[in-house]
Amino acid sequence: MKPILVFQTDFTYKEGAVSAMYGVVKSVDRELEIIDGSHEIPQFDIWSASYRLWQSMRFWPEGTIFVSVVDPGVGTGRKACVAKTTDGYYVVTPDNGTLTHLKKEVGIISIREIDETINRLRGKNNEGVSVFHGRDLFGYCAARLASGIISFEQVGPDYLVENIVVLPIQEPFLKNGKVYGNFEINDPNFGNLWTNIPLSIFNQAGFVYGDHLRMVIRFNGGIVFDKTVLFHKSFGFASKGDVIIYNNELMRVAVAICQGNFSQVYSLEYGPEWEVDFSK
Amino acid sequence: MKPILVFQTDFTYKEGAVSAMYGVVKSVDRELEIIDGSHEIPQFDIWSASYRLWQSMRFWPEGTIFVSVVDPGVGTGRKACVAKTTDGYYVVTPDNGTLTHLKKEVGIISIREIDETINRLRGKNNEGVSVFHGRDLFGYCAARLASGIISFEQVGPDYLVENIVVLPIQEPFLKNGKVYGNFEINDPNFGNLWTNIPLSIFNQAGFVYGDHLRMVIRFNGGIVFDKTVLFHKSFGFASKGDVIIYNNELMRVAVAICQGNFSQVYSLEYGPEWEVDFSK
Amino acid sequence: MKPILVFQTDFTYKEGAVSAMYGVVKSVDRELEIIDGSHEIPQFDIWSASYRLWQSMRFWPEGTIFVSVVDPGVGTGRKACVAKTTDGYYVVTPDNGTLTHLKKEVGIISIREIDETINRLRGKNNEGVSVFHGRDLFGYCAARLASGIISFEQVGPDYLVENIVVLPIQEPFLKNGKVYGNFEINDPNFGNLWTNIPLSIFNQAGFVYGDHLRMVIRFNGGIVFDKTVLFHKSFGFASKGDVIIYNNELMRVAVAICQGNFSQVYSLEYGPEWEVDFSK
Repeated sequence: MKPILVFQTDFTYKEGAVSAMYGVVKSVDRELEIIDGSHEIPQFDIWSASYRLWQSMRFWPEGTIFVSVVDPGVGTGRKACVAKTTDGYYVVTPDNGTLTHLKKEVGIISIREIDETINRLRGKNNEGVSVFHGRDLFGYCAARLASGIISFEQVGPDYLVENIVVLPIQEPFLKNGKVYGNFEINDPNFGNLWTNIPLSIFNQAGFVYGDHLRMVIRFNGGIVFDKTVLFHKSFGFASKGDVIIYNNELMRVAVAICQGNFSQVYSLEYGPEWEVDFSK
Repeated sequence: MKPILVFQTDFTYKEGAVSAMYGVVKSVDRELEIIDGSHEIPQFDIWSASYRLWQSMRFWPEGTIFVSVVDPGVGTGRKACVAKTTDGYYVVTPDNGTLTHLKKEVGIISIREIDETINRLRGKNNEGVSVFHGRDLFGYCAARLASGIISFEQVGPDYLVENIVVLPIQEPFLKNGKVYGNFEINDPNFGNLWTNIPLSIFNQAGFVYGDHLRMVIRFNGGIVFDKTVLFHKSFGFASKGDVIIYNNELMRVAVAICQGNFSQVYSLEYGPEWEVDFSK
Repeated sequence: MKPILVFQTDFTYKEGAVSAMYGVVKSVDRELEIIDGSHEIPQFDIWSASYRLWQSMRFWPEGTIFVSVVDPGVGTGRKACVAKTTDGYYVVTPDNGTLTHLKKEVGIISIREIDETINRLRGKNNEGVSVFHGRDLFGYCAARLASGIISFEQVGPDYLVENIVVLPIQEPFLKNGKVYGNFEINDPNFGNLWTNIPLSIFNQAGFVYGDHLRMVIRFNGGIVFDKTVLFHKSFGFASKGDVIIYNNELMRVAVAICQGNFSQVYSLEYGPEWEVDFSK
C-alpha cells in the first residue's frame, strides 16, 4: 500500500486553504490516504510544530509521510525539504526548525531540498503565487512521493544533516536530590504543562507515586509558584481542582489541575524562560 | 468490509493526541477507516458524550464501532469497556456514564471489560503511561476489534448490563394541557437549546405549527424567561432575531433565535436544573 | 473510482451533526470517500460559503462533488439543488447565493432541483424533521449521486441557470494610475484581508514588487486607513509587525501584517462597504 500522508499546519479549517491543499493531493493520486495531524498548531510556532511531530510520529506505520507547514518565511530564502528519519518516516516541511525534536530525539539520516522546477504544482493560475507552499509545493511534492511518481532521491539535491536548522533545546538534570528542568510545551486544550524531565530522572531522584513534592516555578528567574504538590500516575488521584504532578503520555513529568486548567489558573506558559524544579 | 471506526473525544485537534491515537489504529491495520465524530466534546462532559453518541449512531451502518473518550477518571478504577447495542453497534469507552442514553433509548445487549493484558498497546515506551487510554487502550482495542484480530468475546470478560454506570435522565410529561420538560442539551455552535420533550407530547397537547405558545423557563425553580413564542417547523418561519420553538433533528422540541444565539442572548444553559414548560 | 465528496458547512464539530450527516453517506455506500472542506464557515454567511467553494474547487479532481450547507432558510421555500459547473464539478447546496462565485468566475452549465420524493432520507424517525437538510437531503442526495444510484438527471427537474440566486459582486478598476477595489473576503485565521483586485490590474498600473504604495481604506465612504505600505510577493519581505501588500494564493491583491493580524490590529472587515485604493 502507498504510505499515508499526515498533515500538520497552522492554517485552521476556517477557510478554504486545507481543502485546496488536499485537492492537490487527490489530483496527483486519488488513492492516497490523507489524515489530519492537526491544523491548529499555534500560528508561526515552529517549536510546537517540531514537538507535535515527535510526539505522534512513532505511533504511525513506518514509511508514513508527514507534511508540516508552519512557515512564517514562506516565499523567502528558507529551504523547502524532505527529511528521512532513522526509523523510516518522512517529513515534508520548510527547514526552519520544524525538524528540531526529530533530529535530536530520533535522528535524521538524509535530507533533500525540494527541486521546484519539477516538484511544484503548475497550471492552476498559481505560477506567480509565493504564499501557499502548503498547496503548491509541500502538498504536491508529498503526494508525488507517496504515490511513487518520484523516489526520495528525486525530491531534489541532498544536503548535510548537520546543516538542518534547529532551535535550542534545554536539558534537565538531577543535582543534590533536586530535579531541574523547564516547561517545554503545553496541552493547550486541558491547560496542562509538560516539562522536559523524563520520568527516569524522577526515579533516579527517588521520587515515587504518592509523594508530595515541592515544585518551584520561575519565569525569567523570578519565582511564580512554590507549593508542595501530589505526584501520582494520573489526574484522578487528585481531588477536583487540585494541582497534580504526573507522568505524561511521553513518559515525561507534567503538571495539571484535576479537571481544571493549570496554565490558566496560575498564568503559566512554556518556553526556555519557564524553569521548574522538584524536591522532596 | 471491516467496520468503520468513529471517534469522539474532548481532546481537540490543538496538539498531537488525536494524531498519535489514529496512528495506533493504522499501525494495527492500514485498511481501517477512521472518521471523526467530534473531538470537541466539552471537557470532562460525560453527559454530552453520551448524548452525542445517541444523536448520531443510528445514521451509521450497522456494525460501526464508536470510540468515545471523555475520561476524567483515566488511570483510576473506572472500567474500560466495549458495549454492544441492541441494534448492532459497538462502543469502546470508559464505563463512566457515557452509555447513559444508549442504554435507555436504544438498549445495550452485552458489555465486556477490556482485558489490558492482551488489548493494550505495548512496546512504544508507553507501558508506564496511565493518562492516555485513548491511544493505549481504547483506540488500540477498537482497532483490533474492527480488524477482526479479536472477536467481541475476546475483548475481555463480560459483566452485567444492569451494572453499567448511568447518569440520571429526566422525563417530560403532559398535565392539564401544559407540557413540562427540561433543556437536556444544546447546539453549542448556533446556541439553540434542546428539550427532552418529544414532538409527540406536543401533538398530544394539541400544539400545532403556527401556534404561539407561552414558554416559561426556570433555573433552580426561579423564572428566568416567560414569553409567548411562535412554534413552527423551522427557523426561517420566524423573523431574524426572533425566538422560535421548533421540532429538532431528533423529533424533540427545541428553542432557537432565528439567525441568532438563544442560549447567549438569554444566558440560558442546559441540565437538570433548567426546567421549561409550554402552554397555549 | 467514484467521485470524492467534499463537505462544507457552518455546523462546526462541536456536536453530533457532522457525524450523523457522514453516517448517512456511509449508509448509502460504504465505499464513498468523504473529505472535510470546512465545517467552520461563519454562521449563516452565504457569501463566505460561495467564496470558499470557488477558492478550492479547481484544485480537486474533475467530477468531485461538493456539498455546501450554509442554510439559514432551511425548511422554507428556497430551492435545494445540484449544480454542474462548466469544468465538470458538482455542487449540492441550497440555492441561496452559495453559487454566486462559481456562476460568475467558472460558469454553471446545468442546475436541477432535488426531488424530495425520491432523494430524501426516510425511515430514521426523521420524516417530520425540517431543520437538518444537510443530513436528510443534501448529504443523502449527494451520496446517491456519487455512488451512481442516481444520475445527475435523476436528481430532479432542471431549471434555468439564469434563475440561480446570486449575491452582488463588486468590480475592481484602474483609473488615472490608481487601482480601486474592495475587501471581498478575509483569511480569518491569520487576519489577512483579500481584495477583489487581480494582480493583473496592479501590473497594468505599473506596480511592481518592492514598490511602496499608498493604500487608502474606506468604510462606508469614510477613511479608516491611509498609509504607504510595501508591496511584495510574500509576508517575509516585511519586518515582523509591519503591514504588507502581497499577491495572494488566488492571484489577487491582499494585505497582511507580517506574523500579525491586520484585520484585528486596524479593526477592519470585509464586505461591499469596505473599499480600498492603491496608488504610487
